[in-house]
Amino acid sequence: MQNIFFETIESLEDGQSLVLQSLIDELNFTDNGLIPVITQDVSSKDVLMLAWMNREAINTTLSTGLMTYWSRSRRTLWVKGETSGNGQVLATMQIDCDGDALLCMVSQTGVACHTGQDNCFYFKVDRENMSASVQGSPKNHSQ
Amino acid sequence: MQNIFFETIESLEDGQSLVLQSLIDELNFTDNGLIPVITQDVSSKDVLMLAWMNREAINTTLSTGLMTYWSRSRRTLWVKGETSGNGQVLATMQIDCDGDALLCMVSQTGVACHTGQDNCFYFKVDRENMSASVQGSPKNHSQ
Repeated sequence: MQNIFFETIESLEDGQSLVLQSLIDELNFTDNGLIPVITQDVSSKDVLMLAWMNREAINTTLSTGLMTYWSRSRRTLWVKGETSGNGQVLATMQIDCDGDALLCMVSQTGVACHTGQDNCFYFKVDRENMSASVQGSPKNHSQ
Repeated sequence: MQNIFFETIESLEDGQSLVLQSLIDELNFTDNGLIPVITQDVSSKDVLMLAWMNREAINTTLSTGLMTYWSRSRRTLWVKGETSGNGQVLATMQIDCDGDALLCMVSQTGVACHTGQDNCFYFKVDRENMSASVQGSPKNHSQ
């Protein structure tokens, strides 16, 4: 989406920095105050999951170093792994060009997916046969 | 989000397959008919961008093998690279556990970001200083 603030800072050069809170203030949150977050394993670079944060979840993640999302189904903040132990320690956070999305590299304990799969993207599409098949076996259940 | 169809298929085992269109029909599209798509470079595993597809964009991407998104600002289908030449050839597509997101591995020609950066996530957060700085220099402009 177009975002005048982020368009303005497209001209910044390599290494130039901004006050973080000023970027967070200008993120393109949805009408529900959420932004999509891509979580990637810092070692394997596998994409683990896509989840959502609100402003409080972003600030909590930054202050604690523990990935904290907004659960859209339970309508509450959700510290990943608080019940299962399969938590995620934040390694790096990046913001995209138009303030539409966050990318977080993490150290994952155990598995990322609540189904027990290593990551959430376990339905693999077979274009030739127009089918999708499960890739991998669940290890345990996490939250 | 909770999705009864996807909850039902959590019990499928490694290698079991489904008709692709049945999964696409059950995806958690937003009220605007969109789903977030993570695009990852198949060689480097760098996350390049997050964009959105509607049902037509998914089917066009699957049939042509060229990443085709829905542009929320221009309200039209958008074949990545159609004006800049910086297109993306689909390598693999994966669907997540609750039908909330797609993950596409691609071969990227040129740069992924319209600003000329290699990827869109070029604002890197510095937690200690609560700042964010630009990482990398633009190469050219793409669409």
